Amino acid sequence: MTDKLVLHEYAASGNCYKVRLTAALVGKKLERREYDIMKGETRTPEFLANVNANGRIPVLQVGDRFIPESNAACHYVADESHLIPEDNFEHADMLRWMFWEQYNHEPNIATLRFWLRNVGLDKLADAQRLQIAPKRLAGNAALRLMDDHLRGRDWLVGGRISVADVCLFAYTHVADEADFDLELYPEVIRWMEQIMELPNFVAMDA
Amino acid sequence: MTDKLVLHEYAASGNCYKVRLTAALVGKKLERREYDIMKGETRTPEFLANVNANGRIPVLQVGDRFIPESNAACHYVADESHLIPEDNFEHADMLRWMFWEQYNHEPNIATLRFWLRNVGLDKLADAQRLQIAPKRLAGNAALRLMDDHLRGRDWLVGGRISVADVCLFAYTHVADEADFDLELYPEVIRWMEQIMELPNFVAMDA
Repeated sequence: MTDKLVLHEYAASGNCYKVRLTAALVGKKLERREYDIMKGETRTPEFLANVNANGRIPVLQVGDRFIPESNAACHYVADESHLIPEDNFEHADMLRWMFWEQYNHEPNIATLRFWLRNVGLDKLADAQRLQIAPKRLAGNAALRLMDDHLRGRDWLVGGRISVADVCLFAYTHVADEADFDLELYPEVIRWMEQIMELPNFVAMDA
Repeated sequence: MTDKLVLHEYAASGNCYKVRLTAALVGKKLERREYDIMKGETRTPEFLANVNANGRIPVLQVGDRFIPESNAACHYVADESHLIPEDNFEHADMLRWMFWEQYNHEPNIATLRFWLRNVGLDKLADAQRLQIAPKRLAGNAALRLMDDHLRGRDWLVGGRISVADVCLFAYTHVADEADFDLELYPEVIRWMEQIMELPNFVAMDA
């Protein structure tokens, strides 16, 4: 008997979408539970005590146990599927792109999207406003690195789709909402189109 | 025949130390190649073309292939050892702490250490200076979360040491160099002492 999977999420977050897309691609069912992060619903004493002491979504619930961190949740959902390479080197290489996503891509592209779309330019603190230019630069450098890597490759790792592609697709395909010009990255566009044509693909707003 | 492992590194970086400590704990030999990041030695055209297009260390070289991202490198080095849980949930839970380290711990504690020790307060840009207070707050929140989690536990995941402990030890044990007061986190101190007493432990400056 398999444990029920419940995704504690905020649907417009790319980090949450990753987990849904992974589940769709491997044919696993996810129950969804929505929290409004703009109303602080992931910082309540109940959420901190029972779901994630770090006060963030997504959190994947597996029976009565919890996995915070989007990329760890994706790894769990994809375990023993075609999305996880069997070869040790390729597995580590996949993790490399997933760690890179959380360090070099998400804090720039996803954060700018959140600041511009959800918070609003006029409500940003000075410390945040001063980070817009460096984050813009670093976000474009991340997209450039992906574009260079994907030249002559269909997928990020080992010639096959893996969780790394899913994790990086999530915020890349909405980078225009953070005012990034994706037309500058044609290899990235080709790679994204390939993902959107997958048989079990689900859109972010599905 | 096993591929030779070479660590491309800057020895004072906690991210590089993680990989050395992992190798020591599983009894694998690492060749070391040092780069001076303060002199831009990881941003040369040769480094970007041959070692890591992202211009960062550590990079683990496996034969003639390369794995950037410290936590991915640790995972590769530890593969099939006692440092990687066999159970799927525990494996994902270990990755959860490793992703959390790169998102919530390293950008605060390691970055402050780098700014205060290597760059120097007077040489910081305004955008960086304004981030000191939020990074101080977030770094203390990360240490508090670890301390709470370790209360009643010997290790972060599943009752046994795993790569997550090694990855989080690296910058936690030098957090005082970023002016964090570790005495506030007695469970973290107990956990660190346990790691330092492991038979094959190696120090950061070894």
